[in-house]
Amino acid sequence: MAALNGFNRKKLGMNITSKQPNTGTTIFTVMSKLAADCGALNLSQGFPNFDCSPKLTDLVTHYLKKGMNQYAPMAGIQPFREVIAQKISDAYQINYHPDTEVTIVSGATEALYAAIVAVVHQGDEVILLEPCYDSYAPAVTLNGGTPVYVTLTPENGYKIDWNVVKSKITERTKLIILNTPHNPTGTVLSEDDLTQLAEIVRDTNIFLIGDEVYEHIIFDGREHWSLLRNPILQERSFICGSFGKTFHVTGWKIGYCLAPKALTEEFRKVHQWLTFSTVTPIQYALADFLKEPDNYLSIPKFYQEKRDKFLTCIKDSRFTYTPAHGSFFQCVNYQNITDEGDYDLAIRLTREIGVASIPVSVFYNQKNDYKILRFCFAKDDETLERAGEHLCKL
Amino acid sequence: MAALNGFNRKKLGMNITSKQPNTGTTIFTVMSKLAADCGALNLSQGFPNFDCSPKLTDLVTHYLKKGMNQYAPMAGIQPFREVIAQKISDAYQINYHPDTEVTIVSGATEALYAAIVAVVHQGDEVILLEPCYDSYAPAVTLNGGTPVYVTLTPENGYKIDWNVVKSKITERTKLIILNTPHNPTGTVLSEDDLTQLAEIVRDTNIFLIGDEVYEHIIFDGREHWSLLRNPILQERSFICGSFGKTFHVTGWKIGYCLAPKALTEEFRKVHQWLTFSTVTPIQYALADFLKEPDNYLSIPKFYQEKRDKFLTCIKDSRFTYTPAHGSFFQCVNYQNITDEGDYDLAIRLTREIGVASIPVSVFYNQKNDYKILRFCFAKDDETLERAGEHLCKL
Ligand SMILES: Cc1ncc(COP(=O)(O)O)c(C=O)c1O
Ligand SMILES: Cc1ncc(COP(=O)(O)O)c(C=O)c1O
Repeated sequence: MAALNGFNRKKLGMNITSKQPNTGTTIFTVMSKLAADCGALNLSQGFPNFDCSPKLTDLVTHYLKKGMNQYAPMAGIQPFREVIAQKISDAYQINYHPDTEVTIVSGATEALYAAIVAVVHQGDEVILLEPCYDSYAPAVTLNGGTPVYVTLTPENGYKIDWNVVKSKITERTKLIILNTPHNPTGTVLSEDDLTQLAEIVRDTNIFLIGDEVYEHIIFDGREHWSLLRNPILQERSFICGSFGKTFHVTGWKIGYCLAPKALTEEFRKVHQWLTFSTVTPIQYALADFLKEPDNYLSIPKFYQEKRDKFLTCIKDSRFTYTPAHGSFFQCVNYQNITDEGDYDLAIRLTREIGVASIPVSVFYNQKNDYKILRFCFAKDDETLERAGEHLCKL
Repeated sequence: MAALNGFNRKKLGMNITSKQPNTGTTIFTVMSKLAADCGALNLSQGFPNFDCSPKLTDLVTHYLKKGMNQYAPMAGIQPFREVIAQKISDAYQINYHPDTEVTIVSGATEALYAAIVAVVHQGDEVILLEPCYDSYAPAVTLNGGTPVYVTLTPENGYKIDWNVVKSKITERTKLIILNTPHNPTGTVLSEDDLTQLAEIVRDTNIFLIGDEVYEHIIFDGREHWSLLRNPILQERSFICGSFGKTFHVTGWKIGYCLAPKALTEEFRKVHQWLTFSTVTPIQYALADFLKEPDNYLSIPKFYQEKRDKFLTCIKDSRFTYTPAHGSFFQCVNYQNITDEGDYDLAIRLTREIGVASIPVSVFYNQKNDYKILRFCFAKDDETLERAGEHLCKL
């Protein structure tokens, strides 16, 4: 058995030239760890502290026990792709073919990365609207692309000035990444945004990624304006979704990508080398779960109540804010309270008042001093109440 | 709810310039589909047709029900990383630090891809020993590297001539990928192989990937010579493992990467953008399951019996072969039977005698005519017996 050939390691590895010298530990890991160390309420990282529907874990158990434990087909199991195509068709009357246009992946993170690998060639430019999710820029850079930023600011409610977007387009622009509902700002795209974007890209070869992981987390009766609802955008878009976000199971790492056949072909060629396929019993379970539309149609109301609960809890605080239109994040401005930088403040609040948040400046490439914190309200009511009490003391 | 803004799609997507114009559907997908269509016995794709231990599905169920359904830490949950480090230390007396040198990923496929992204820069050369697993070359190419092939042939039992490997090294060589036990040939590296490799790389900055997904599937009392057992190799190696392979749950897509701290740092920076983290309840379940060494120490015997069963079933056939030393694949030479190409034969056998296999030429970059088929013997005894009956008729 064990050969006695152990040796005393002297080195922690050979020298390696980093392709990502500026990448450190992400703020999410930093804040979640600090929250745990301080025993603080963790409203930082974007995951619920309540569980999913027991129907869903029952379904996974059922398929585990039924022996659905070997490789799924590379693109995902057929019934799952079919029910996703059906759901999209029911909602928007647009048909994606389950065989050639729907792909199951290991979370939206993988979908984003695979779509970027599929389209970005060495020297291409990719337009990112900052603040944005932290994986976009490194995925672009690792694949030889250059991020080109359009900066959205809190002063005008993070509204996109499409003329600015247009002004950033060059011959080398290959891709624009959009996120609606938006993390961290809680804003959403409107039908008019899609129309303006369509005007800009219609005569170009620019591709789009629609990061729509919060598609069902949208409030006050707003509609989700998926990029796929505009025909000019649809034919060039990779739409990325996450069941982790929709069904409160962020730890299951399962999502999907919708894209027209020609784009899906290239997407799948990448997916097969990245992970090849995604957890089989979970695919079967979600396929069944999606067959009951109530399971997702009830989500907006559920999270709107969470948002409202959180806003009620902080209404006597000195924070100012616009209620989030979507996502499970609420951004607040703290300039009435202190003029510390947001990173310092987030650390201090975790340590001193026991509430962890995320400083919004980390979602920007440009250094800035906007004085905004992001709170995740996907938490049980008691946690939101206690966080509110602490925050109102500031 | 659903807005009536559907439109008739005219196009299957915009034109897209493929980065992988020669990549089609993989042979595994082709053969598995053909096997299903023909009702053939599927000895092609590498997955078991029997289930895992019920203890393991019970454990997953336990953690699902316990609510362990949110994001795991990026590197994997602590107890899982710890038990893996312990297992390696018990087997080889070499310590990997669970905090900084062990990372959980979504299958060995992701580990391989992430390690390649971490080390390969534009223009680097990567030495591959063909035949080899199909993801290596595309992962290298997509990341700006050039595969440089060393060809192993059936005539000398796929033995590696290290002088040939040495002769391929240039100033631009960044990485060598090794696979032991080997898919598709069933060969394994020896201690002497490691020593020779160490001589070649010791004064270079060349990194290594040890694809060791079949680490526990090794026969006739042979030892697994993991790259990490040689100190010169260890300090430059990413060791990739797969619980899918070890515990008959290929569909769970969960594996790990061991690498010294400096290498792990770069590996994790990539992993966080590829998938970020891996299915939480499965991590907890496997952490517990690994605590009983019997669960993996029993694997070699189990698969050796499978191999022997298969060999008994084909002993009256006209195939010639060397019994596999490891992996769950048996390669056979069919030149006594026909001089068809292996691809044509694999297709014909699936259609005509109802047994699907994989033509070994697909694991080569170079076109060749070796007349070898690969059969996966990770199948229940009845399937192996029926396959044997059909194959003996040839
Ligand atoms: C905007 C955005 N995109 C993508 C993701 C990643 O989703 P998944 O967990 O499915 O990989 C997140 C998660 O926080 C997100 O906020
Ligand atoms: C040699 C080799 N490496 C890697 C893998 C992929 O392993 P996983 O399913 O854990 O991604 C396989 C699967 O067939 C394999 O044979």
